[in-house]
Amino acid sequence: MSKTVVMSGGVGAAKFLRGLSKIHPPDSITAIINVADDFRLHGLAISPDIDTVTYTLAEQVNPETGWGQKGETWRVMSELERYKGQTWFSLGDLDLALHLYRTQRLAEGSTLAEVTKEVSAAWEIEVNLLPVTNHPVRTRLTVEGEGDIDFQDYFVARQHDVAINAVRFDGASDAIPAPGVLEAINEASHIVIAPSNPIVSIGPLLAIPGILEALVQNKERVVAVSPIIGGLALKGPADRMLSELGHEPSALGVASLYQPFSSALLIDTADKHLSTKISNLGIKAVVANTVMSDISKAAQVALSAINATNPPLTGA
Amino acid sequence: MSKTVVMSGGVGAAKFLRGLSKIHPPDSITAIINVADDFRLHGLAISPDIDTVTYTLAEQVNPETGWGQKGETWRVMSELERYKGQTWFSLGDLDLALHLYRTQRLAEGSTLAEVTKEVSAAWEIEVNLLPVTNHPVRTRLTVEGEGDIDFQDYFVARQHDVAINAVRFDGASDAIPAPGVLEAINEASHIVIAPSNPIVSIGPLLAIPGILEALVQNKERVVAVSPIIGGLALKGPADRMLSELGHEPSALGVASLYQPFSSALLIDTADKHLSTKISNLGIKAVVANTVMSDISKAAQVALSAINATNPPLTGA
Repeated sequence: MSKTVVMSGGVGAAKFLRGLSKIHPPDSITAIINVADDFRLHGLAISPDIDTVTYTLAEQVNPETGWGQKGETWRVMSELERYKGQTWFSLGDLDLALHLYRTQRLAEGSTLAEVTKEVSAAWEIEVNLLPVTNHPVRTRLTVEGEGDIDFQDYFVARQHDVAINAVRFDGASDAIPAPGVLEAINEASHIVIAPSNPIVSIGPLLAIPGILEALVQNKERVVAVSPIIGGLALKGPADRMLSELGHEPSALGVASLYQPFSSALLIDTADKHLSTKISNLGIKAVVANTVMSDISKAAQVALSAINATNPPLTGA
Repeated sequence: MSKTVVMSGGVGAAKFLRGLSKIHPPDSITAIINVADDFRLHGLAISPDIDTVTYTLAEQVNPETGWGQKGETWRVMSELERYKGQTWFSLGDLDLALHLYRTQRLAEGSTLAEVTKEVSAAWEIEVNLLPVTNHPVRTRLTVEGEGDIDFQDYFVARQHDVAINAVRFDGASDAIPAPGVLEAINEASHIVIAPSNPIVSIGPLLAIPGILEALVQNKERVVAVSPIIGGLALKGPADRMLSELGHEPSALGVASLYQPFSSALLIDTADKHLSTKISNLGIKAVVANTVMSDISKAAQVALSAINATNPPLTGA
């Protein structure tokens, strides 16, 4: 059976995975998921990207937000306001149950990968969800004229409304890929860089020793999907971050970042005019609709991505 | 203003404090509360006795159980069952908010006493609530033929349905009383040992270096309220524990335990026949109704306790 690996951040990757699982057997797909947004709050171990992928593949994600569960309630957060507690990161009641579970299992000595598998099984998810590493890796951003802050401080508390001039991934150089991560990359017939933030979702995956090397070795089977369309990120600050860190805030900038380890880049029809420039960077530009506004469109994007790599998928 | 200290466990002490606060200015009362039932679950810092006292004085306690909030819901616990998480210790949604708050504040470096004061202020509680210590103290019980288990494993998971033959309080000998605890005892005109479990609620208070000594020094102002009526505990396993640990499971057994540091013991009218035996132990037996089935009866019990000590309260 041909196997596919998806290098994943949160919402964009989750939509892509959901689409891909409609055209590929779910159990032939492995998602290697970013953990550098993970953090502790209220003593709880929170893994936003893993959870977004989980809820999305469980067909349980809140369609309004792209994260959290549908039918979510906020009774705990509401009561937390009584104590003037930290409510800036909203944790729904249903979502909290998952954080309680993960925190307890980690305290008992389980790895993040083991807990992720247990949670995934509880939701009867067939896609293989793998945190990129079991080690703590934490994104830190340098805010101009201020200093370093944590990712969730940047992303949620400040709504990414500050300019940054550096990003680093604390702990990455000491981390090792979770069991099965490198094997999945090496065995895959197709490796997709999901339409996630290149800097803070894909970046930390590449920062774990061994991952970038594995992608480079399998470059002819790696295709990336540009998260930037017409110079804008559909969600989040990827466009501004690229610009602030000195990259072109466009599919061309993405191509430049991904060229060392990707043979093809899926770009939106809106960016067709960039095709030649992208190809001149040594990465094949494949033009398709890339907006995943519903599941059938997400499946179409997944199909376009899979077909962009060499060898093309047979028997799908 | 005359000040009163109440050495407190959970439900029984909470009822007593609520009654006492109807006959004394609440801000003249200090509750020194057991922390040896505290534990971590799901990564959260849980302090059952402090919370029971808090909710009770906030007039918010669930009247059916004597602990937890009224109007409580169980959405998080219900979802936790999806993951086969640890639901043996039921944490309501409202209650969870308090645990999240405390855990976060402790992680930020606050002491348990500071957090307790913040929570108490949020509920506009005027009684001064003091954990006996900011240090971790943990009750461990030796189960016959099995070994040592944690308090909540004994009390909740096993519903105290196993025989024990020893109790110890890990960490107690290295703990120091929280700021204000010894001062409150030394300044009080009345010190009440609440009708709490002598072994696992009052016992751990006495195990903190300095507490027993302070009570002994102020013995003439210390009155205890027997939690055993007619040989039975109104709530919990106090009667059986006394028996299993070699004490008389009666007000007489309580008198024997408390005689070294109490000058009077309030016993129920049902135990009037024990008065002489108790007095022969060198502790004055005062007979009164001690069942706190409603707030006016709790106030009456509090009044009886206060009047049992010497000097009697003036101007109350």
